[in-house]
Order: sequence, then structure tokens, then C-alpha cells
Amino acid sequence: MRDLLPAEAESQGRLLARLLGTFDLFGYLRVSLPVFEYASVLEQGLGSIEPTNLLRFVEPETGEVVALRPDVTPQVARLVSTRLADHPGPIRLCYRGSVVRRQRERARHDQQILQAGIELIGAAGLEADLQVIEVTATALRQAGLTAFTVDLGHGAIAQSLLSDVPAGLRAELLEALSLKDSVELARRATRGGIPAAAKQALLALVRLQGGLEVFASARASLEGTPAWPHVVELEALARAVDAARLAPQLVVDIGETRTVQYYTGPMFQVLAEGPGQAVASGGRYDALYARFGEARCAAGAAIHVDHLRWALGNQLQSPRHRILVVGGPDESDVTRILLTALREAGISAASVAPGQGGTLPLDYARAWGYSLVARPRGSGDKVACDLFAPGGQAISDRLTVAGTVEAARAPRG
Amino acid sequence: MRDLLPAEAESQGRLLARLLGTFDLFGYLRVSLPVFEYASVLEQGLGSIEPTNLLRFVEPETGEVVALRPDVTPQVARLVSTRLADHPGPIRLCYRGSVVRRQRERARHDQQILQAGIELIGAAGLEADLQVIEVTATALRQAGLTAFTVDLGHGAIAQSLLSDVPAGLRAELLEALSLKDSVELARRATRGGIPAAAKQALLALVRLQGGLEVFASARASLEGTPAWPHVVELEALARAVDAARLAPQLVVDIGETRTVQYYTGPMFQVLAEGPGQAVASGGRYDALYARFGEARCAAGAAIHVDHLRWALGNQLQSPRHRILVVGGPDESDVTRILLTALREAGISAASVAPGQGGTLPLDYARAWGYSLVARPRGSGDKVACDLFAPGGQAISDRLTVAGTVEAARAPRG
Repeated sequence: MRDLLPAEAESQGRLLARLLGTFDLFGYLRVSLPVFEYASVLEQGLGSIEPTNLLRFVEPETGEVVALRPDVTPQVARLVSTRLADHPGPIRLCYRGSVVRRQRERARHDQQILQAGIELIGAAGLEADLQVIEVTATALRQAGLTAFTVDLGHGAIAQSLLSDVPAGLRAELLEALSLKDSVELARRATRGGIPAAAKQALLALVRLQGGLEVFASARASLEGTPAWPHVVELEALARAVDAARLAPQLVVDIGETRTVQYYTGPMFQVLAEGPGQAVASGGRYDALYARFGEARCAAGAAIHVDHLRWALGNQLQSPRHRILVVGGPDESDVTRILLTALREAGISAASVAPGQGGTLPLDYARAWGYSLVARPRGSGDKVACDLFAPGGQAISDRLTVAGTVEAARAPRG
Repeated sequence: MRDLLPAEAESQGRLLARLLGTFDLFGYLRVSLPVFEYASVLEQGLGSIEPTNLLRFVEPETGEVVALRPDVTPQVARLVSTRLADHPGPIRLCYRGSVVRRQRERARHDQQILQAGIELIGAAGLEADLQVIEVTATALRQAGLTAFTVDLGHGAIAQSLLSDVPAGLRAELLEALSLKDSVELARRATRGGIPAAAKQALLALVRLQGGLEVFASARASLEGTPAWPHVVELEALARAVDAARLAPQLVVDIGETRTVQYYTGPMFQVLAEGPGQAVASGGRYDALYARFGEARCAAGAAIHVDHLRWALGNQLQSPRHRILVVGGPDESDVTRILLTALREAGISAASVAPGQGGTLPLDYARAWGYSLVARPRGSGDKVACDLFAPGGQAISDRLTVAGTVEAARAPRG
């Protein structure tokens, strides 16, 4: 859990507003869910998260065990299965919130992840899966991300080839598959007595990654296997994503197995330059709702706001001016008129006293990220001011105030 | 910790955006601070919160005690005193976040309170105190609150009359004073051997509540006592709040003692019809920063977002349309064109299949708060649609789409 300083917090807030604004345009309604709950409730909905990655606490007086949520989706499932159970489907909900996951690699280090996500509950099929990707991709574009890759997979393809295999061996095979380690995969399959046809299909999965052309190769290896219907489903979705131009780049990974314990159908990740991990991920999870009482089909996605912030990098600079008005601690009339006019024009403005001998407070402006320094002149109903960049250079544009601000058009420095 | 359903979460999000937008206009920069921290850090900054009201947890494996923050201000003080220690003052920061307080009254019940607040650090005097009230009142107005009362007090007035009194007796006297119980106050003062002059001054505090005229009465009772300089300071602030018309109603309570352990100077509450408690409160707390290393003067305020939501009541209805487009699960061309055009026009839109026999999905529209139902007609580059209220009444206005939406002007129902 870490602090965010002003520049980070501001860009995070701006990104969240864009993401949630897009969710709203698609009709997804906000819900808000608590950061911690009784551990038993959270554990009920654990999917891709290992139970050992849940951060638990004991309340000394009551002995109650509470946990910080590692994922918002199960909380949404709890809400839909209780207070919204009578509402007609399809249900479109969205949220923003932090999740907390324990990291056991290297030194212990708990990670707070800010997410903005959507859930589409009670809708199945191509259009539903496509919409989750469309909303996610549109939100990322609205946030300013122009270059990204959608990586499509399917949670049932590898699993369907292994449905008769004992759980222990299945986990071993999935692990080798997730590492795309053909040699190890073949060794484990042989040792485990996997029939030759299933083994060939598994080995084919390692290679089936690329553009839409992989579906032609997949037909040769997988047609007739239990995986084939899922490949057909994935191909239809991939072609629809391509036709709708939802992604600047599209990659299909038929052997994707990283999150298969959770996803039961098509799944995706959005990758971008910068962060080593996905900026968004999602998919279909039709098995979750049964744990909360009544089975419902559902798909969803979550955007990892800090990874997105990382991927956007310099594009995150605010396009808006923040103006520092030079004025004494007792804010004279002229300072006050200028401040009020700027704020009425929607410009962020604050005042600070000049330095010794009336010098411009440029250090202050730079330290706090002001884009302009304004020194007011005049009085009464006509107030003008000289503008300076935070480096001290005079800017020729004038700001003239007469009840309203005429302009603050200096290019953003 | 409770869930917020869509209507509540949406209005909460909208209110927060308005409040934070106002803070931004006044130059207050966002920071983000973790919901829980090591208990030792949080306890360092406890002021008006009783330590027993802190919700603590033990992490079983490490034995570390963490606590959910009962107040954001000490976290801001920690941040300013560490990572922002070298930045020049005055420092203007703002935040949004949940705080958690234990309630020991009646059944145990922990309360999650969503706050939006500001801190003005390194500025003292009338202008600084006035600005904290100005920003708070402006934010409340921007959020739609038109009728409210600013109740002004001062954290040092009662304390200064009791500076020589032993702590136990002082607490007893402050308690009687906070209940405005003159009889009990007089009894305790006599029993405690308080000198007659101080006792008279204390008893006067009970009555000194009202408009600006209370300062004239205060002079008779308090001039010459150690409280007098603080009364003079409060009067200057009250007259400035009045002159700047910051509050529709202004009340002065010279004997206010509810939060005096925390506030060292002028303090205020904002009251409105509806919630039994303040929608906002704040004041000067010059003693906090010394606990984090270097003393700094500081003032701040926090808006209680759920109390504000309560006070606003029906005014919270969103002014925007949400349109439900009638369309099959496979979203035909005409449905898709309409949805895209509506979203490009900034209107929230989603589709749902018609009912049996093509009936309008009015139950669905009502359950999910759509303001209009649109049944598209036409095809290709010219799409029209019939509009209906969620009750089923046809609306005469037309929505015609030809790449862009011409209008959705039906009055909000």
C-alpha cells in the first residue's frame, strides 16, 4: 500500500474518470463494494487467485477473520446473487477499486492494485464476449492508449483435452504448456500415459500462437478433438474483433493456459509497451455464479490503472493550465478578482506571496507544477496581468480580466 | 462496510467529481493514501479520534498490527513531513477516501465514511482560515447544496480558560460545557475550586451562541480573560465569512467544545437539513505536525459525502438520459448504428432484446433506471427510432440518426 504524490494521483484520477465515463456510455452502472470482507465470503469466490495470496487479518477482540479483497468480481457476484437477484438480465455493472494481493516471490511484498472493471452477467455468446472486449478497448483508447495488442485465448481448450487426466498430472501438463516447453510437455505426457492423439493435440497447442492464420493450422491438429468446438468459438470471436477493428494488433494464443482455472470460455489480455504485465484482462467465467447460489453466465474485464498509467507515460501530462497568481497573504482586491475570474473560467488557480524584493515565486511554481505565473496589474473592474512560464520567461499573451477572463491561451509549457 | 447499489454509487461518484473539481479550481492537488497502515503510524496522528475507536487487525503470520485509518489528515501530515518535506509552502492538498471508525454505542458497528477533503499547510491567519471555509462552501454549492448553515467555533477558547486546571477536572468541565448544561458546569466548577472569575467566564460560554451579535455579549464576559484573544480572532473570521457571503446561514458558537482536543484555532461545521450530523467540518490544527517531526501550522476540512448525499436527496437525480435501445442479442446493423451514434453524442446507451411477440422491454428499462426506450427503424445511413418513456407512453420527439444523433430532447422523466 503506497502513497501517491500529486502528479501521480492527478493522472490516476483523470484516467479513472475516462475509463468510468466509457463504461457509462455503454450502459454499465457503477457499484461500490467494500475493500475488506469476512474471509469466508471472499474465499467462496476465489478463482484465479490462490487462497494463499489472500491477505487475512484477525480482529483481536472478536477473533473474526477478515480479508482484503484480491478481486472485485466475486463481490459483484455476491451482490448480484443477493440484492440484485430479482433484477432482469442482462446485467451490466462497473466498478473502480483497489484489490490487494500477497506477493510471495522474493521478499514478501503486498501489492495494492487499482482496477476499473466491468461485468456483463446473464449474457452469453459471441456478442457478449465481443462487447466486453469492445468496452475495454474503447475505454483504453479514450484514456489515450493508441498502440496496444489484444491477445485472445480460451479457457476451455487445454482443459477439454485433459478432462480425463488426474488432477495432479493435469496441473503438471498445464504448467509445461504455460511455459510453452514442448520437450517437458512431451516428457510429462509420455510418463503420464497420455494417449498419442491427445499428446499430439497438446503439443500442437504450444505452437498455435500468432495471427488469424493459426486457425488453419489448428484445424489440422485439433479438429475432432474435444477442444475443437472451443477453437471454433474462439475463431468466430477473433474474426469479429478483427472485423470491428477493436484492436490495433490482434494475437491469438490457442495454447494460452495462464488463467484457465477461472475462465471457462474466451479470454483476453491487452498488452502495451512499458509495463511488463497486461494493462487489462478479462474473459468468460460461467462457473462462478453457481458458488453463490444460482448459476449465471458472465463475462468481465478489469483494467489495471497503474499499468495503464505506465503505458501512457508522457501522454499523461494534464492538458489544462494551472495558474499561480502572485499575491500577498492578504490577497488584495486585484489578486482576488483575478483568482475568481480564472476559477469561473474553469482554470485551476491559487495565489502565493512574492519573494523578497517582489521577485516572482518561480521555485514555488515549479515545485507544485503550475504551468503559468500571473502577476496582476490594474484595479477595480479592469484587471490585467503579466504572464510568465515557470522558468521565468515572459509570455507575450495577455490575460485581461473584466469580470470574465478573456484568455489564457499561452501554449502549455 | 456496505455495498452501494447503482443509484447510490452513481450519485456518490458524481458528487465526488464535483467536490474534487472545486478543490482543483482552488489549486489543491490530489494525493492518494492507503486505507490501512501500521497501527503505530496511525496512532501517532490521532487527534479527535479516541484510540479505542481505531479498528486494528493482527496479521497472523507476522504478528504485525495494522489499522484502518480513522482520519486522512494524519496520513497527509506523514506524507508532507517525509516525501514533500522539501517543498515550499503553503501546501495545498486534497484527497478522497474512506475512513473507518468503530462505533461502540449500541451494538458494535463499524462505520465506513467516505470523505473528500482539503489540507492547507504552512499558512496561518485570517486569510488561510477563510480560504478553507470558502473552498468547502464553494464545493458544497457546486454539488448542489443551496441551504446550509456554517457553525463557527474556536478550539482554544474553552481550553485557555482551563489551562491551569488538572486534566481530569478539565475533561469533566468540557463535557458539561459540550452538553451546554449550566447547572452541572457550575456544580463541577465549584467542587473543583475553580476561581470565581474563571467560573463566570465558563458559564458565559454556554450562552454565547447565535449570530454576530454574540461577540458584543462575549466582550462583557470574556474581555481580559485568556480566552479573549481567541474570541477576537474568531470574530474577525466570522465577519469575513459574513462579508464574503460564504454561508446562507452563519451561526457562532463561542462555547463549542466538541472537537477541541484536535483543533487549536478557528473551527467550523456545515449543517444541512436531513442528516443529523454535519455534512462537513474542519478547522485549524497547528499542533499535529510537531508529532511528525517539524511543527507546521495547518488547517483543513473534510466533507462527509454520504451525509451530503442525504442532504441533497432528490436533487441527486442524474440530469442525463440513459437510453435503452431495443435490439436482438445479435445487435442488428440498425441497433448498432443507433448505439454508436448515441454514445458518440455522450449519451449512455445499451441494447436488450424485445420481449415475447416483440413487446417493449419496459420492465427491464425500469429495473435498470433507463430514462428512455428507443425502438429503431430504417436502415443503412438513415436510422430513425420511436421513443417511449419507461412507463410505455410514446414520446413525440424523434431521434434521427445519420452518422450523428440529431436530438434526444425529450424532457427527463
